[in-house]
Amino acid sequence: MDLEALNGLLRPQSIAVVGASNKEGKIGYTVVKNLLDSHYEGVIYPINPTDSEILGLKAYPSVLDVPGTIDAATIIVPAKLVPMVTEECGKKGVKGLIIIASGFSEVGRQDLEKQVVDIAHSYGMRVLGPNIVGILSNSDLCNASFAPFLPLPGKAALVSQSGALLIAMDASTYTRRVGFDKMVSIGNMSDVNFADTIEWLDQDESTACISLYIEGLRNGRAFINAALNAVKPIIALKAGVSAHGAAAAASHTGSLAGSGKIYDTAFQQGGVVRASDLNNLFDRTLALSLQPPMQGDNMLIITNGGGVGVLATDAAERYGVPLRFAPADVQAELRKHMPEFGSAKNPVDLTGMAGKDWYYASVRFAFAHPWVDALAVLYCETAMTDPLEIAQGIKQALEDAGVEGKPVAVSFVGGEQSAAARKWLVENGIPAYDAPDVAINALAALREYARSRQMAAVPFQRYADVDEAAARQIIANARAHKNSSLTEIESKKIFRAYGMPVAMTELATTEDEAVQIAEQIGYPIVMKIMSHDILHKSDAGGVKVNVKNAEGAREAFRTIIANAKAYKADAVIEGVAVQEMAPWGTEVIVGSVNDPTFGPSVMFGLGGIFVEILKDVTFRVAPVSAEQSYKMLEEIKAGAILAGARGEEPRDRKALSEVLSRYSQMITDLGDEISESDANPVLVYEEGQGVKVVDARIILKK
Amino acid sequence: MDLEALNGLLRPQSIAVVGASNKEGKIGYTVVKNLLDSHYEGVIYPINPTDSEILGLKAYPSVLDVPGTIDAATIIVPAKLVPMVTEECGKKGVKGLIIIASGFSEVGRQDLEKQVVDIAHSYGMRVLGPNIVGILSNSDLCNASFAPFLPLPGKAALVSQSGALLIAMDASTYTRRVGFDKMVSIGNMSDVNFADTIEWLDQDESTACISLYIEGLRNGRAFINAALNAVKPIIALKAGVSAHGAAAAASHTGSLAGSGKIYDTAFQQGGVVRASDLNNLFDRTLALSLQPPMQGDNMLIITNGGGVGVLATDAAERYGVPLRFAPADVQAELRKHMPEFGSAKNPVDLTGMAGKDWYYASVRFAFAHPWVDALAVLYCETAMTDPLEIAQGIKQALEDAGVEGKPVAVSFVGGEQSAAARKWLVENGIPAYDAPDVAINALAALREYARSRQMAAVPFQRYADVDEAAARQIIANARAHKNSSLTEIESKKIFRAYGMPVAMTELATTEDEAVQIAEQIGYPIVMKIMSHDILHKSDAGGVKVNVKNAEGAREAFRTIIANAKAYKADAVIEGVAVQEMAPWGTEVIVGSVNDPTFGPSVMFGLGGIFVEILKDVTFRVAPVSAEQSYKMLEEIKAGAILAGARGEEPRDRKALSEVLSRYSQMITDLGDEISESDANPVLVYEEGQGVKVVDARIILKK
Repeated sequence: MDLEALNGLLRPQSIAVVGASNKEGKIGYTVVKNLLDSHYEGVIYPINPTDSEILGLKAYPSVLDVPGTIDAATIIVPAKLVPMVTEECGKKGVKGLIIIASGFSEVGRQDLEKQVVDIAHSYGMRVLGPNIVGILSNSDLCNASFAPFLPLPGKAALVSQSGALLIAMDASTYTRRVGFDKMVSIGNMSDVNFADTIEWLDQDESTACISLYIEGLRNGRAFINAALNAVKPIIALKAGVSAHGAAAAASHTGSLAGSGKIYDTAFQQGGVVRASDLNNLFDRTLALSLQPPMQGDNMLIITNGGGVGVLATDAAERYGVPLRFAPADVQAELRKHMPEFGSAKNPVDLTGMAGKDWYYASVRFAFAHPWVDALAVLYCETAMTDPLEIAQGIKQALEDAGVEGKPVAVSFVGGEQSAAARKWLVENGIPAYDAPDVAINALAALREYARSRQMAAVPFQRYADVDEAAARQIIANARAHKNSSLTEIESKKIFRAYGMPVAMTELATTEDEAVQIAEQIGYPIVMKIMSHDILHKSDAGGVKVNVKNAEGAREAFRTIIANAKAYKADAVIEGVAVQEMAPWGTEVIVGSVNDPTFGPSVMFGLGGIFVEILKDVTFRVAPVSAEQSYKMLEEIKAGAILAGARGEEPRDRKALSEVLSRYSQMITDLGDEISESDANPVLVYEEGQGVKVVDARIILKK
Repeated sequence: MDLEALNGLLRPQSIAVVGASNKEGKIGYTVVKNLLDSHYEGVIYPINPTDSEILGLKAYPSVLDVPGTIDAATIIVPAKLVPMVTEECGKKGVKGLIIIASGFSEVGRQDLEKQVVDIAHSYGMRVLGPNIVGILSNSDLCNASFAPFLPLPGKAALVSQSGALLIAMDASTYTRRVGFDKMVSIGNMSDVNFADTIEWLDQDESTACISLYIEGLRNGRAFINAALNAVKPIIALKAGVSAHGAAAAASHTGSLAGSGKIYDTAFQQGGVVRASDLNNLFDRTLALSLQPPMQGDNMLIITNGGGVGVLATDAAERYGVPLRFAPADVQAELRKHMPEFGSAKNPVDLTGMAGKDWYYASVRFAFAHPWVDALAVLYCETAMTDPLEIAQGIKQALEDAGVEGKPVAVSFVGGEQSAAARKWLVENGIPAYDAPDVAINALAALREYARSRQMAAVPFQRYADVDEAAARQIIANARAHKNSSLTEIESKKIFRAYGMPVAMTELATTEDEAVQIAEQIGYPIVMKIMSHDILHKSDAGGVKVNVKNAEGAREAFRTIIANAKAYKADAVIEGVAVQEMAPWGTEVIVGSVNDPTFGPSVMFGLGGIFVEILKDVTFRVAPVSAEQSYKMLEEIKAGAILAGARGEEPRDRKALSEVLSRYSQMITDLGDEISESDANPVLVYEEGQGVKVVDARIILKK
């Protein structure tokens, strides 16, 4: 990343406003006024062709007339003038452009947008936008946007693809009480994209959590890599996840993928925490910006009401946080701070009689106890207790516990007094919410963050024993024959070149050849017609199974050829495939798509109804390590079948994981050639007995 | 329902406060003060053994000393004194008791609680509580509780099992801006339960929506019936839905049911809308209390921002509301009120330039258009538009549209101005939220309400051609032999008595008898050992299939008996079952549990892995009509298999639905006898070919 140029763009020491105006209501007026109102301490250069002063500042006809240096130029002129302005900025030595102007790719003018970026890059400038609101930063006292004011100060940074939503979210930081240091509008992402802003914000000292509103990514791989490299938590609200568009996908695997499923796995693989909706984005951002990740599994809930305790328990199950009873010593100590009818299990119910002292004592003890990995403190407003006092007790207890690196989240259900207590807690660094499930969801976010980081920490290791050159030669041959897909035999050769155990298959063009191959493979064998003109081999009488000897092979060869000719007189017959007859095993399917956003991605599921009717499949952006692949086997609903359900022996999941991993390497290496592929079925045998790819298919890119 | 007594309890004209106190901080003080502070217009009689005046009111030593009549007595004395007070109230002719006092079943004193209810009932009094906060009613200016104030006025009524949560929710009505007319705390539900309050609130003119916080129901049937009979919308937040407790269930069907799944279906069968969490309860209550149900499927979204439009689209899919493009004429008209780069499809994007006029014109037109069944109006705060003005435009447009019976929900994302606009909208009867998905969720609630009402409107029709007496005779015989479960043959006879197609099975005790039965049934047949001492028939060599003639039947009989004796020398052998050999069909499982809350409930799923590994099953509280049963076949994930997936012929779902319905009648009629039962497998044939119950099992109640 060109850190220097992005610094100029996102923390400019001087800003030119090209298209600055004295007319109230114009964006060129608003941006200058907002810079002044936010007490920006850098130099502001309004640029206007005629006016010599704007809002009390000296104005210049062009950036070329500005005496000092310009870090960032905010551009608010008609789209057609932007290339000229960009040229001038380049000549002036501006570092980056904040192009607020619209009228580019969002209205079909990709050409104009590309022209601007090309000019900018020729001068080494970076481009934010076009079609954006601008940038806002509390720590830099900089509102270089037409959003009316800086957000409520805080430690999060928002990057939004939607300008309108950024403005509304900016305003709502004050009512939601979630603070942000920075807000960056990235609009059309002609140059600076999510990956760039993640990298930059990750090194920005005022940012503790990177919060994203995403409609679509341009380069999914760059996004995943930037996310993986970031040390700060990243949370994303992905809009546009409905099935829309999936139906258009050509293949079976493609239609199962849709866009949503690949986004889901990509975010997870990059360690990006998801937000389910707008409120959830704010709620989780608050926790991620104020609290450390939840490193273990043990969440303790302390409450003064059975009702909110039960709601929190339900939420724990819903959000995947296991809830265990606290150990005996923890229970024994906690029991000292509650009446007899309280409960020291988990949730710990201090009862409605709990005041500041009991909250203080139980929170202080529990937070310090090594068994506790995270603490949820719930309070239900009563007529007898003062919410602010309770809040202060909680804060004091957390401080006095003297431990660090554990998260806490609080819920106060009640009226205006509780709202005031929540505000006080948030201002004191403790995320506080108005419902118990929201607090649990916030802790779940901190746990998801820790867990996806751990999972992402297992990197893919390339298999060295592969023959990429041989694979490419097979594809080149097929392309030379103008074939858009490979035959089963060709496909299997490529799978084998990547070290996958494939049921041996060779093409026989004569009876003698068939016998010769069969004897190499060993009986029994399967024989199948090979013809680009015959797709449904069985219907054509073109398949013979369980062929046991040479005599049988000769007879099968003759029958298959005769049947095929009878079925379709003008069919061009390439020969008969002679194939090892694999013993029965559990049928699974491995498939791939070449996702337009994320590139080669691997799918896994059990065969037959599991894929076709239950859609019980899982995806990963390739490549994927054998360890990660193993998790894929566990995460499908039918995973128990591979684990050995119903009294069956467990299947060889280790061997299957390796096949998935090798397959993912194959589709990655050959991502420029392979559009889709699958191995269907792959037969999985008992533990230690391995797997066998029985059929394989590769479709080439156009 | 005893409406008169409940009127006295829930809308009392005069209230005695037994245990009234002059000591601040005592509940007996708070309740009298709250009645005074709420400007209660009825008569208040403080009851105190020593003080003659309480908070300026004349006090009496006992209710028996009160000169006038008493509608309701609020009881705040130690638990052990409550029976005596109840006796006195009975003698005085009090209509109902509001027992705030605790120390009853919640601490194991079921005996004391029963004693109080028995005394009350002997005098015709109803009991609310014990262990409650009290009752609150804005329209009656009555705060007969120790919650500090009446809720924000509105049209909803809250019934809560948790007192602490009721107090906190009461306070939070002011911060959440969701209004309630009444709040009723029902605590231990010793007498007045959810069903009673639903019935009473349904006829209460100040209540438009009945909102429930439920931890557990006592009588599930009464609840469903009350809900079905209510004309007002009911929404329930069920706490305690986590898996807890399901593992304890004895049988397979039982463990699949858990408590959550039966609650889910029971609420749906009763037309009760669900809330997922506390915020959702408030959000949906607001919509249900202000807006009519959504009768059709067409929701139109009008927005000023693409971002919130996309988020709303995602939410529509998530909450099951289909989103279709508006018809051409609607689009053409809407296009008049937006710039060229807007969109008239659905969401209708008026763009960020939209002010009051465009909102007015598009909302007015769309709301009046017959294609539109519901309207979601979204606004994203901009620097250029005034939220309150937009809100006023929306309100005016809805009025001027001149249509009724269609719901609308609004989302304003923004800061304090938007919050003020939302408040104004709600005060004007329009549910307004702070995020687009919440508005869509609110409309989804109004749609769920309409749909579950329609579904609930198809009643179960009893099958007349059943022989309940014969079934009971079989059970009586088994009980006479001290059997806790029925044999396969007995079970099948009961299934047959309820008109289900059962694979014919008779017991043969001799070779001759076996042949005689076989010839009645027709070959081929299956023969199986019948012995209470041999559970695993196959392991004992006790099963012979495909027996084709009399000779075979004799030989099979001898072999089976010999094998059984060899397997277990001391086994008591009842004979050999001779059974019709049913041709292969799709295997399904029909099962039942006798749920402690809801009684006999039917389960349905596909056989094998579908039930055992994928847990792909669905439930209904019995009885269930054939039409409803048909929906069960569709709602399991594997439903497509019955519909004829993968080129197979569709299965006879009509015949299967009838079997489910007859089965549900059987377990209902015999609910006092049958604990669990199943038909496993039931074979389902092609359309018109019917189904066959191959094996059946009935376990009796202890």
